[in-house]
Amino acid sequence: MLAVAILAAGKGTRMKSKLPKVLHPLGNKSLVERAIASCELVKPDRTAIIIGYEGERIKQALNHLTGVEFVEQKEQLGTGHAIQQLLEPLKDFSGDLLVLNGDVPLLRPETVQKLIATHQEYQNQATLLTANLSNPQGYGRVFCDGHNIVKQIVEDRDCNSAQKQNPKVNAGVYCFNWDVLKEVLPKLSTNNDQQEYYLTEVVDFLNPVMALDVDDHLEINGINDRRQLAVAYDILQARVKEAWMMAGVTMIDPDSITIEDTVTLTSDVIIEPQTHLRGNTVIGSGCHIGPGSFVENSQIGEDVKVFYSTVIDSSVASHSKIGPYSHLRGQANIGENCRVGNFVEVKKSTIGNKTNVAHLSYIGDATLGNQVNVGAGTITANYDGFNKHPTIIGDRTKTGSNSVLVAPVTIGEDVTIGAGSVITHDVPDEALAIARQKQKNIENWHSRSKK
Amino acid sequence: MLAVAILAAGKGTRMKSKLPKVLHPLGNKSLVERAIASCELVKPDRTAIIIGYEGERIKQALNHLTGVEFVEQKEQLGTGHAIQQLLEPLKDFSGDLLVLNGDVPLLRPETVQKLIATHQEYQNQATLLTANLSNPQGYGRVFCDGHNIVKQIVEDRDCNSAQKQNPKVNAGVYCFNWDVLKEVLPKLSTNNDQQEYYLTEVVDFLNPVMALDVDDHLEINGINDRRQLAVAYDILQARVKEAWMMAGVTMIDPDSITIEDTVTLTSDVIIEPQTHLRGNTVIGSGCHIGPGSFVENSQIGEDVKVFYSTVIDSSVASHSKIGPYSHLRGQANIGENCRVGNFVEVKKSTIGNKTNVAHLSYIGDATLGNQVNVGAGTITANYDGFNKHPTIIGDRTKTGSNSVLVAPVTIGEDVTIGAGSVITHDVPDEALAIARQKQKNIENWHSRSKK
Amino acid sequence: MLAVAILAAGKGTRMKSKLPKVLHPLGNKSLVERAIASCELVKPDRTAIIIGYEGERIKQALNHLTGVEFVEQKEQLGTGHAIQQLLEPLKDFSGDLLVLNGDVPLLRPETVQKLIATHQEYQNQATLLTANLSNPQGYGRVFCDGHNIVKQIVEDRDCNSAQKQNPKVNAGVYCFNWDVLKEVLPKLSTNNDQQEYYLTEVVDFLNPVMALDVDDHLEINGINDRRQLAVAYDILQARVKEAWMMAGVTMIDPDSITIEDTVTLTSDVIIEPQTHLRGNTVIGSGCHIGPGSFVENSQIGEDVKVFYSTVIDSSVASHSKIGPYSHLRGQANIGENCRVGNFVEVKKSTIGNKTNVAHLSYIGDATLGNQVNVGAGTITANYDGFNKHPTIIGDRTKTGSNSVLVAPVTIGEDVTIGAGSVITHDVPDEALAIARQKQKNIENWHSRSKK
Repeated sequence: MLAVAILAAGKGTRMKSKLPKVLHPLGNKSLVERAIASCELVKPDRTAIIIGYEGERIKQALNHLTGVEFVEQKEQLGTGHAIQQLLEPLKDFSGDLLVLNGDVPLLRPETVQKLIATHQEYQNQATLLTANLSNPQGYGRVFCDGHNIVKQIVEDRDCNSAQKQNPKVNAGVYCFNWDVLKEVLPKLSTNNDQQEYYLTEVVDFLNPVMALDVDDHLEINGINDRRQLAVAYDILQARVKEAWMMAGVTMIDPDSITIEDTVTLTSDVIIEPQTHLRGNTVIGSGCHIGPGSFVENSQIGEDVKVFYSTVIDSSVASHSKIGPYSHLRGQANIGENCRVGNFVEVKKSTIGNKTNVAHLSYIGDATLGNQVNVGAGTITANYDGFNKHPTIIGDRTKTGSNSVLVAPVTIGEDVTIGAGSVITHDVPDEALAIARQKQKNIENWHSRSKK
Repeated sequence: MLAVAILAAGKGTRMKSKLPKVLHPLGNKSLVERAIASCELVKPDRTAIIIGYEGERIKQALNHLTGVEFVEQKEQLGTGHAIQQLLEPLKDFSGDLLVLNGDVPLLRPETVQKLIATHQEYQNQATLLTANLSNPQGYGRVFCDGHNIVKQIVEDRDCNSAQKQNPKVNAGVYCFNWDVLKEVLPKLSTNNDQQEYYLTEVVDFLNPVMALDVDDHLEINGINDRRQLAVAYDILQARVKEAWMMAGVTMIDPDSITIEDTVTLTSDVIIEPQTHLRGNTVIGSGCHIGPGSFVENSQIGEDVKVFYSTVIDSSVASHSKIGPYSHLRGQANIGENCRVGNFVEVKKSTIGNKTNVAHLSYIGDATLGNQVNVGAGTITANYDGFNKHPTIIGDRTKTGSNSVLVAPVTIGEDVTIGAGSVITHDVPDEALAIARQKQKNIENWHSRSKK
Repeated sequence: MLAVAILAAGKGTRMKSKLPKVLHPLGNKSLVERAIASCELVKPDRTAIIIGYEGERIKQALNHLTGVEFVEQKEQLGTGHAIQQLLEPLKDFSGDLLVLNGDVPLLRPETVQKLIATHQEYQNQATLLTANLSNPQGYGRVFCDGHNIVKQIVEDRDCNSAQKQNPKVNAGVYCFNWDVLKEVLPKLSTNNDQQEYYLTEVVDFLNPVMALDVDDHLEINGINDRRQLAVAYDILQARVKEAWMMAGVTMIDPDSITIEDTVTLTSDVIIEPQTHLRGNTVIGSGCHIGPGSFVENSQIGEDVKVFYSTVIDSSVASHSKIGPYSHLRGQANIGENCRVGNFVEVKKSTIGNKTNVAHLSYIGDATLGNQVNVGAGTITANYDGFNKHPTIIGDRTKTGSNSVLVAPVTIGEDVTIGAGSVITHDVPDEALAIARQKQKNIENWHSRSKK
């Protein structure tokens, strides 16, 4: 049996925020959600979030997660005190307890898995994650014998100058034998200059305590301020982008690109600079995305070009071209071999294959057939001030420039709509619909208007 | 009494520019303006800019500054010669002289303050700023005794190989006792292979001369070419962005963001990649700006979202959403809870609360009330080819798609404007205004037009 | 006489691509085209590309190049085997053979020139390019005497631990005396653990073999995966951007800018962040390009401002302002002192001087005179569903907001077009053309429509 405790009771003063620190987003997840997610390979039986500052807000923010329980730490008297709060809720639990910090979001699930495997293989009473840092300042130092058995942990402020040279630091990630730990926890003291209960003091009561070095020391980075938050974002991004490059994605200036870890790419995708891919986005082979594009929660087929455009909650089928300066949103579903062009917004609409909406249009709540040509400046007037209404346009229909289709309205197939027409009634297949005054030329206007 | 002399007479050949080097912009200030600004904490009584190459142009560029005088150096015969030009204009001045370079723009005011405080505390005849560089090549080396008293300054080209190892370099920033210096300046010689008057030669005549190490050696970076200009910009940006992150601003990919030092942010602002904040911009708490946005000289309230948009010389009140692809400019003042959307330009207009201008509109010289709904493609025709005229739209009015409001025109409250209408006359409250031909459907057009 | 052989037969499995590795683009040229281009200063008499995997595709991709021949290597049995394939096609050739790799794209032409000059000056039988790397791991090590005469080349995997310390590595770039080499090539064996024919084995048969160190070790970077491709792109960009900065171009955040090596800039151009310059683009002095702009194959005059816009295959004459959110494409030729503004697309059109197209317009296949004012929302309806037709607009003409010009149509000089008009017939000089229904105000609509 495995229980996880995540320390999330602190305020995080240096974040200078109304939001409790562990709720700050790091990409598409909050810090505490990332700590929880780092346990995904070890499948804990219980997950306890130890809350304090703004605890109710944390509960709410995590209420989409199942299997998470909350333990309140009313006063913040140290890490040992935090874990003492588990004595009651885990009084009948038997097994191992993994302790994580809610503000350490970069731990890989593989690292957590290895920590627990090591703990169990050697039947340790405690196993703690360590890192060897070139600049260990600020961290507690861990002193081991030649077999990684921990002899002592000394807080940075308590280190003498020789001890300060030790590069091995305590990552604050522990696996304990809970059945032993729960006997030891009540013995913790506050004999230190912070007058707090340190969790590290339990090392004195347990045996053996083993240290496991993390391969990539960046995993143990904690977040205390927004600068560290920005650095953590970069580290996370570097992981994601490197993995996709190794899988066959070309990136031009990868440092300028962001890709959330929920995005799925394919080999032979090309991503140009300043492109951002977010949420449950899937992009097919041969696509060329960017520069300057934003794709969120959208499905993009193969060989699609997205150029200086924004695609949100939408889909684009293969061989279509989007942009520059298009905005697809709210279930805009574009067919194959389409062209959606300059200054075109498509919202909650389905567009058939080989259909063009090339310039200055708003298409909302509409269904367009195949091979439709939407003239420049065509607008579907989907909103009467009270409700939204649908527009339907049949195959091969052409709308004139600056025409307005006042919904609800159905335009047939092979229809021609005259330029500048406001269409308020349905149009049958093959008809020309027109609503236009005749042109008058009034001569010599220029010289007269001058007078 | 304190006088400041800023060396600004050189051409800066390596800039390869028609503009004199010290007028090149570094963010929102020229290099020489930054040198002047680095004295802001020490409040000099006199500030003399020593000009030569394109001196008139420099005078003009600085004529918005008060309390600045210009001293001409007709020939450029070295730094010592430049300071000799002050003998006449400062002949009656008594006190300290601070010497700065017009092409060293990154000095912090606190550093200048500390230099002068040190100079005065120790009653030095000269105090010079030094830095310890890992790569001191190219700089004059400063040799001190154990009490920071300068024994010798040797130009890089004159250093023997032992001297070249000395990491302490001369930053070219000096504080002198002017009453002593003015006696010494006439003694400078040109006994060096450049045959110039070196200001550093005065060290031989003054006592004591003290060196003060700068904390951050990046402050002494001089600008000689555009590469160094780009590096200086990055250094300046890193300072500004780090300060705002420590104050509680979240930045995603801060390297891609630029924020001028005249901008005011608030805690819990989120700035997305590739966003640029310039001029006297103020952004309130909870705002989410970017990606791909540009905000200049604008006031943004709280909880505003600006997404792929440009906001210049305008304001947006709280809880409004701008973008993607909006352009606000020239005193576009947007109310609370508004939505300004896709492909919308607003110029010199006031927009009330809860008003939407969501798609493909140009609103210029207009006043819109509250809860107005501007239909897609609505245009205020504010320009008759000669003058600009105003448009007024009352509360809760709705304009139809592709309608044109020909200014000057006043539309009342609760008005409905029909789609495609050109409105040339005022519309009373509660009216429907419409200017539209009836729709005609001409059947079988498709087969006929084929013939 | 000089022949060049470029090894291009491998698949490049780690690229994870359908495209053979050497055809991957690095900026505006494929990897193999860059290898070919690195010979441009030495003007080879023959250039043989040794192809294998997807050889036909490589032939096609390079068929725009003259003077290139292709030699097939049916099996990939090592670099020595690849060069053996030249025995037949070069059997009558006498002179030097330069061997390059198709996946080493960063070699400077000057380096290749120096290699051959060294080879010929010392009458070497072979001269090979070497680099001294701080991390030589993975490369074959080259052991020389004190006169750069190569004694031994040992593959990384065959190095003992002392040999691994040698920082001098084999870049895989060779110049051979072909008349000697062709006698030696048949002697190569496969006595190594890869059981391949190593070209480096020829060193045992030739004398003297000389090593030439490359100045900039980044030149020898090979491309094996997309990460290395991204790094190579950055290196190439750094070269291009540094050269332009030294030539007097200001760049703000150069890391965020890309400039292809085919672009021509001028001193006193300012390039803002996130700007991309591609193809045969030329930009004149005083231009201010960006942020967020993309210019490809376009000619930009002097003092032009391009702000958040896209310019492709077009030209802009001096003192014009483009953007934000403009799109010029397909031979849009803009005159002097024009303003092309927000949400305006111009395609295959010529626009005179001092003409404004400021808002929400599509101008296609049109010729506009001087001092024309195109009203917001004006559209040239250039496409009748079958063909594109021209629109001509004379000097000083003004089009009303949301007007449509249905091509083919000719509008004279000094014409006024009424707002909202659809113009289907020509308009003579000085006329007012209007096609509009009168406005009707229907009172109390609001209360009635509520019922």
